[in-house]
Amino acid sequence: MSETILFTRGVPPTEALPAELIGECMQAALKADGTTILQYGNTGGYPPLRRMLTEDFGVEENQILIGNGSLHLQDLFAACVIQPGDTVLVEQPSYDRAIKTFRRRGAKVIGIPLEHDGIDLAKLEAVVRQKTPAFIYLVPDFQNPAGISTSEAKRQAIVALAEDYGFWIIEDVPYRRLRYQGTSLPLLREINPRRVITMSSYSKLISPALRVGYMVGPAEIVAKVTELAGDTILSPVLPSQAAVAEFRRRGWLESNVANLKQLYQPRLAAMVGAIKKHLPGVAFAEPEGGFFVSITLPAEANYANLLERAQAANLMLTEGRTFFADPDDGRPFASEGERFVRLPFCAVTPAQIEEGVKRLASLL
Amino acid sequence: MSETILFTRGVPPTEALPAELIGECMQAALKADGTTILQYGNTGGYPPLRRMLTEDFGVEENQILIGNGSLHLQDLFAACVIQPGDTVLVEQPSYDRAIKTFRRRGAKVIGIPLEHDGIDLAKLEAVVRQKTPAFIYLVPDFQNPAGISTSEAKRQAIVALAEDYGFWIIEDVPYRRLRYQGTSLPLLREINPRRVITMSSYSKLISPALRVGYMVGPAEIVAKVTELAGDTILSPVLPSQAAVAEFRRRGWLESNVANLKQLYQPRLAAMVGAIKKHLPGVAFAEPEGGFFVSITLPAEANYANLLERAQAANLMLTEGRTFFADPDDGRPFASEGERFVRLPFCAVTPAQIEEGVKRLASLL
Repeated sequence: MSETILFTRGVPPTEALPAELIGECMQAALKADGTTILQYGNTGGYPPLRRMLTEDFGVEENQILIGNGSLHLQDLFAACVIQPGDTVLVEQPSYDRAIKTFRRRGAKVIGIPLEHDGIDLAKLEAVVRQKTPAFIYLVPDFQNPAGISTSEAKRQAIVALAEDYGFWIIEDVPYRRLRYQGTSLPLLREINPRRVITMSSYSKLISPALRVGYMVGPAEIVAKVTELAGDTILSPVLPSQAAVAEFRRRGWLESNVANLKQLYQPRLAAMVGAIKKHLPGVAFAEPEGGFFVSITLPAEANYANLLERAQAANLMLTEGRTFFADPDDGRPFASEGERFVRLPFCAVTPAQIEEGVKRLASLL
Repeated sequence: MSETILFTRGVPPTEALPAELIGECMQAALKADGTTILQYGNTGGYPPLRRMLTEDFGVEENQILIGNGSLHLQDLFAACVIQPGDTVLVEQPSYDRAIKTFRRRGAKVIGIPLEHDGIDLAKLEAVVRQKTPAFIYLVPDFQNPAGISTSEAKRQAIVALAEDYGFWIIEDVPYRRLRYQGTSLPLLREINPRRVITMSSYSKLISPALRVGYMVGPAEIVAKVTELAGDTILSPVLPSQAAVAEFRRRGWLESNVANLKQLYQPRLAAMVGAIKKHLPGVAFAEPEGGFFVSITLPAEANYANLLERAQAANLMLTEGRTFFADPDDGRPFASEGERFVRLPFCAVTPAQIEEGVKRLASLL
């Protein structure tokens, strides 16, 4: 049997989890500030970490909410703003769990096609003109699943449109600091923060199961989400937030991010190289960072039952259709995603990447 | 100015939080099993802690879900089972946040009057006969807010009624192990587990902000709630669950609970003594454990604006009406709770209790 190769979830590799360092930080934090960290009463998050975030983003403390992972904050935000009959816009393709969350909170979710530099602005404006959405959900840096980054011009246009029509923008930027090449683009909130909720987390920078995610936005909407968070969970899990604060205080976030980039950059290069070599005719955008490269197979490729055939060859893939919101007609998946294959590269070695893409090519 | 006395939230006192021990457990757990504890993939909770709970309750692993506090599990359970138009029954008075949670998830919440030995069975049966509820929510041991425990006979009758009519019972038992006198009564699930969801947590036994709560129930309903939990939060915060598992493995839960009982028992005695001394005409049930004594002021007492007048005397009380679900007519509170005063005793010293009750008596 050949080795099983996982091109499935976007998780960090085991060797990237700094378990002992986090253990040290937990213990130090509990020793120094145990009675705050272990008690009820900080619904908005662990105060020292909130203060660090105010400095990161140049905002006030009441503009920040730290919760148990940013997915839950998306769920709570959605519960606060979605009214019956509302639409929510997402990139097409988009993060499957976000699509599911907004649907569960009652929205009709509409996908706006993603181009090589961000969503199709003409289509976005047409959809917005027809009906103002509650919000648009974007992953502007190294998008999940496509790996694409939204250009500065498109960021400006989207912010302007949100201002004109009066809808919220969620910019979800968990991968932002994992840039392996090129230069950083402004956050949408840096263009104009009035309509922007920035969400991010330490899941990709330190560890996923710490579940430390946060939102940054205008004080009124942060207050609403914080109230619902308090009613829903009383307070977030503070020890892991305190460990993150201590990790940052010691300067370990910088060194950890540097280590991650060193680990992931060659994996991205290996993925791009393997696709060019084994799938020469296939369209894809070369990401400058993050966790994902994605490809769209040509119409003439043999992609029927691809997941099953790949599994038989010990290659695990994710169903591409789950990333496509449209059509929102009760079918579990949109058929449009049939030819879409997400290829997460961080948790596989360059050798596994080479072998995995070769195996994939042999099936098409 | 006199010392401020807090008869407000049911929190453990600062000196009861074993910060250094938890720090040691966190570090040991991260050292021994860091790659599990820091990674995605255990939606149902940290496997070693789940296995400990299977032994506690004599159930299978698929009957247990560990989440970020039991309040969130109540929210997720409510989302899974409440259909439009459904009713949910609670004790009257009941835990204010649970009432709010069930309403937020769309239920009409009906309060069934609490007697000295549990809810009024005749009223319960009359309400159930009129319309089968989605579930009833009970705190059978040292109830929040009333301090009352449900008798064994009433436990049996409630379980039988749930079987006959086909509704769920949530028994929320966070205080169960904090019994200072008397003998333990069977869990409702020990009478018949088919219709019972048992919820509890380590918030009152180790620390609140660890947010380690769990539910135990039939596998099918646990699977449903686990799926929604995964969609909502991906996975719970595992480091704090791992710290609890390590805390238990070292035998520290037993010693910690013994310490807590030693700390809290004299406080309960002080509260009961102070009420008898300063409020001789006032009706109340003497609890055998937990966090709360509650009193119902006589109709002739001067209870108008009690909270404001108490605050002016540096005595902080909680609004009694929030614990009363009825009437569910859009008014923020039921007026029935006007004369109800909850007196949490764990986070105040015997001297503060004596002084606080004296101050309360002087206002009536």
